[in-house]
Amino acid sequence: MRTQVAIIGAGPAGLFLGHLLARAGIDAVVLERRTRDYVEGRVRAGVLEQGTVALMAELGLDARLRDEGLVHTGTNIGYDGEIFRVDMAALTGGSAVTVYGQQEVMRDLFDAAEERGVRIVFEAEDLVLEDIAGSSPSVRYVRHGEAHHLACDYVAACDGFHGVGRGAIPADVLKVFERVYPFGWLGILAEVPPVNHELIYANHERGFALASMRSPSRSRYYVQVGLDERIEDWSDDRFWDELALRLGPQAAAGLVRGPSFEKSIAPLRSFVAEPMRYGALFLAGDAAHIVPPTGAKGMNLAVSDVRILAEALVRHYRDRDPAGLDGYSARALARVWKAERFSWWFTGLTHRFPDMDPFARRMQVAELAYIRGSQAAQTVLAENYVGLPLA
Amino acid sequence: MRTQVAIIGAGPAGLFLGHLLARAGIDAVVLERRTRDYVEGRVRAGVLEQGTVALMAELGLDARLRDEGLVHTGTNIGYDGEIFRVDMAALTGGSAVTVYGQQEVMRDLFDAAEERGVRIVFEAEDLVLEDIAGSSPSVRYVRHGEAHHLACDYVAACDGFHGVGRGAIPADVLKVFERVYPFGWLGILAEVPPVNHELIYANHERGFALASMRSPSRSRYYVQVGLDERIEDWSDDRFWDELALRLGPQAAAGLVRGPSFEKSIAPLRSFVAEPMRYGALFLAGDAAHIVPPTGAKGMNLAVSDVRILAEALVRHYRDRDPAGLDGYSARALARVWKAERFSWWFTGLTHRFPDMDPFARRMQVAELAYIRGSQAAQTVLAENYVGLPLA
Repeated sequence: MRTQVAIIGAGPAGLFLGHLLARAGIDAVVLERRTRDYVEGRVRAGVLEQGTVALMAELGLDARLRDEGLVHTGTNIGYDGEIFRVDMAALTGGSAVTVYGQQEVMRDLFDAAEERGVRIVFEAEDLVLEDIAGSSPSVRYVRHGEAHHLACDYVAACDGFHGVGRGAIPADVLKVFERVYPFGWLGILAEVPPVNHELIYANHERGFALASMRSPSRSRYYVQVGLDERIEDWSDDRFWDELALRLGPQAAAGLVRGPSFEKSIAPLRSFVAEPMRYGALFLAGDAAHIVPPTGAKGMNLAVSDVRILAEALVRHYRDRDPAGLDGYSARALARVWKAERFSWWFTGLTHRFPDMDPFARRMQVAELAYIRGSQAAQTVLAENYVGLPLA
Repeated sequence: MRTQVAIIGAGPAGLFLGHLLARAGIDAVVLERRTRDYVEGRVRAGVLEQGTVALMAELGLDARLRDEGLVHTGTNIGYDGEIFRVDMAALTGGSAVTVYGQQEVMRDLFDAAEERGVRIVFEAEDLVLEDIAGSSPSVRYVRHGEAHHLACDYVAACDGFHGVGRGAIPADVLKVFERVYPFGWLGILAEVPPVNHELIYANHERGFALASMRSPSRSRYYVQVGLDERIEDWSDDRFWDELALRLGPQAAAGLVRGPSFEKSIAPLRSFVAEPMRYGALFLAGDAAHIVPPTGAKGMNLAVSDVRILAEALVRHYRDRDPAGLDGYSARALARVWKAERFSWWFTGLTHRFPDMDPFARRMQVAELAYIRGSQAAQTVLAENYVGLPLA
């Protein structure tokens, strides 16, 4: 089998890329290790940047998003028991974010795949990349016990942090930058109306808390926990008590409790691999970088990567101009690093660090107080939150 | 002897306060341990915020400042060998900073003291504060071997970080917050024209550098050095070479070298003491807080403290309203913490830390790149640099 672009991984990066290439008439095959149900069922991000929403619209895949997505023109920051709102739309000339779960995005992308000619091979296991530095790149994989070989011009590794894509870049070429945070997020989903119609990011002495949602009837809540915490020690009651405490009396006044139907602890990590291109191989999304979830940049960053990559591939195939592909790594990384900075900064501003001395704590409070009173500082937060331009 | 307000220390905080109280007809005596020549000769800060310049004007002490001060409507940031300018005036609705050495400010304040009725007692040694928590506060001191006693209503401790004022607050009342930075600034003065008409703050792999000035013919330059560095190991040649390297070829192109006539290494520290009032005692300036010099907030913060304190004392003596004095600590600290945050942030953004990993370095570069491209981020820098409002 032969294709122009072999896309590894049918997560958001891979599927958006598949749709973008199909639209441009570039032949591509998406290889996915798991089943559609598995991929679609993964509970992940839920806040879409302006640019991600725009891409859904551009692809004509936003019917349900327009219907069910919750447009947030502002976000809320809590500290010292009080809350202030950042009016993102007013500060950015009308930009907003939209709450629409990654699961919903995936469903829309999968549903439209066949009629758009996006070819997806599920259960493609034991992937091996071959000759990515040479003239005949290809991907070998096994499906239902049978060996397959996919020859291609380029490989787009959209296979996540634990995928094989990044590992195909020689160790002496690949540079990695990493920060592992000394805490995690304990998150729950519950079929209760959200405590607030917009998100609340709360900095509390006891640690960070986030009030988010998936829909008007489904809440998504998080509390920062130590890395040694075990999920079985967190009954629903304990979770709700801790959440209410950290949100503070003002924000927690309307908190509706209910049984959780999903509960998990996720570690927080910042990670960037450079370069994002090696020979015929292009990395996109989590395969190249991870952000801590504070600020919800993960999926959005995957989207901006593949937007840049799709543009570059179109330029190559349509205009015979290699500049896009040659510049992909630098262009994508410029935006990646800014989003990494924002996620790192927002994490540092809102979380309790085990080694934090009283001065560091006061710096958090002083910065929050400053942001509260400064339109410029709120604009910085807002323009990053709704998403920086592609550049 | 008796007065309404005993002011300890004839640095910027004490002398500005003396002038403000004299103008309001409040009786005050400034007690200074050193001679005028000593105090006036200390090489210190050189960048005045908008509000500090406004206070000089308000006091009618700005004739020389208007003549000799260098108004800077912008400042410059260097990294990766390139420079960008932050147009502070454009971003803040016309605010600027003025380069005018602390020595010049002191001279103006001293020169006008006598005719304005600002009483200063020099060489007042072995100061002891008495009964500051009681109804008969006073200050004892020794001058030329003779013991003196100054009864007062209030004591304003403007006696710097190493003064006796802060120590008079009981240890179980005083809270201190501190950060000692793992580096210092090696600074020189040289009678050469500055390399640029505005300041350049440079972040270089080898460490921070700052190109500043005192006048069109007098340059003030700094390079970040380790705390174990000895001044005798830094010949002028070595200093100039290091400075040129860190400023980068673009900025250093016009660097004029010459013999230094002042060379010193200063440590960097963030420090805040709370509260700033205890009984009849009020702390102002370095007696209560220290900032690292990055961003030039030290003297300006002393000025905003005594502005708030003078207002409070006027309200007390003229209106019999204690609210100003009661609110002094909270009001002053609100601004102090924001300036502390700015100085800490600007130091963190521009200096090389010994324990910095590659991720942390990339965060600096990403933030600098972001600031370079974001009007909102430049506005944040600008509004802090020209000085936040008193509030």
